[in-house]
Amino acid sequence: MASTSRERLLDAAVSLIRTKGYTAMRVEDVCEATGLTKGSFFHHFASKEDLAMAAAERFSARADLMFSRAAFRDEPDALGRLLAYVDFRRGAMQGDLAGFTCLLGMLAQETYSTHPQLSQSCGQHIQDHAATLEPDIAAAKAAHAPDAEWTAHSLAMFTQAVVQGAFVLAKSQHDPAVAADCLDHLRRYLELSFNKPQAPPHAVPAPRSRRAAAARKS
Amino acid sequence: MASTSRERLLDAAVSLIRTKGYTAMRVEDVCEATGLTKGSFFHHFASKEDLAMAAAERFSARADLMFSRAAFRDEPDALGRLLAYVDFRRGAMQGDLAGFTCLLGMLAQETYSTHPQLSQSCGQHIQDHAATLEPDIAAAKAAHAPDAEWTAHSLAMFTQAVVQGAFVLAKSQHDPAVAADCLDHLRRYLELSFNKPQAPPHAVPAPRSRRAAAARKS
Repeated sequence: MASTSRERLLDAAVSLIRTKGYTAMRVEDVCEATGLTKGSFFHHFASKEDLAMAAAERFSARADLMFSRAAFRDEPDALGRLLAYVDFRRGAMQGDLAGFTCLLGMLAQETYSTHPQLSQSCGQHIQDHAATLEPDIAAAKAAHAPDAEWTAHSLAMFTQAVVQGAFVLAKSQHDPAVAADCLDHLRRYLELSFNKPQAPPHAVPAPRSRRAAAARKS
Repeated sequence: MASTSRERLLDAAVSLIRTKGYTAMRVEDVCEATGLTKGSFFHHFASKEDLAMAAAERFSARADLMFSRAAFRDEPDALGRLLAYVDFRRGAMQGDLAGFTCLLGMLAQETYSTHPQLSQSCGQHIQDHAATLEPDIAAAKAAHAPDAEWTAHSLAMFTQAVVQGAFVLAKSQHDPAVAADCLDHLRRYLELSFNKPQAPPHAVPAPRSRRAAAARKS
């Protein structure tokens, strides 16, 4: 039962931080959202920062699980998987802004100066996620662009910069379509970098389309 | 004298929001930073949100002026100017994170749900800045990539997504170099999109280097 209360507090924190930001989230808000007392809160967490650290951890673990089980992982070829990852992320960029944007980037940006340890912990989660792309980028590079000067790590981080920047623009324009459009440019960059003939973004083959639809539902 | 007080309040707000974020900035902090009273504050601004709106306006006006006067504007060719813009932004990505990152993206991201009008005002400033790149992108497209499917507007917005995402990563990694690395990828994407032979990023010709140095000082 104790772990269930803890998880409810974490889920409330993820939702509140994604919506209002870290500073605007009060411990009282988390208690109210869960129906738990402050006593219960401080039984599980030493502080609001402690809660946010654990919320970032939980958000990342869930994302890891979702990405590891996503249909794009079934693409047999490294470059195909990488492009399908971009399509998967693009497909998720719709609906409620708080529902598809990233807790980690928002939290890292807001707290980089006031709570640097929290910010860097979010940064580590982003880097860990980027690292999951590196083997496919390295394999695609060896196959299609062996002389390229960038490293797999650098390109993997760039994909995350585009995703994070797309979220900032979507929020600032209150329009998910701006984010999706950025992912189309990212896909073009990857296609050009790996010397892949470009397909028009609207001429998406059926399997990619179905996967994007699946991504939206997850 | 009244306008001087107002400007001091705005400059303090720009600095505080860039460092701590919007919610963490208290009116008291702004007064303390300027040595002005709350009475003086509320003479100039109706609310903290009102102050932040004007701070975003001031930040944008200053950035506009800096970009309009920057040496990269002297590049005679549209594509050259666009690439030099990227180099200029890359050159500025060093030193103190609060000193080179963007008030608008940080403010827009933190407040998109709690103060949507403020967030959208920041979004408008970002879009206005992106629009300054559109004529050069349109001219470069006509000259080098007339059949490309993207619009000048879409590519201009993408450049800002990369810049904003680079800032998020730099903050989350506490490392400006991550941001600069993202701008190298952006430059490669532009070169590939406009069919320009790629130069190694470290083989920067001297004039670009001098301009980057100038950008750092401004």
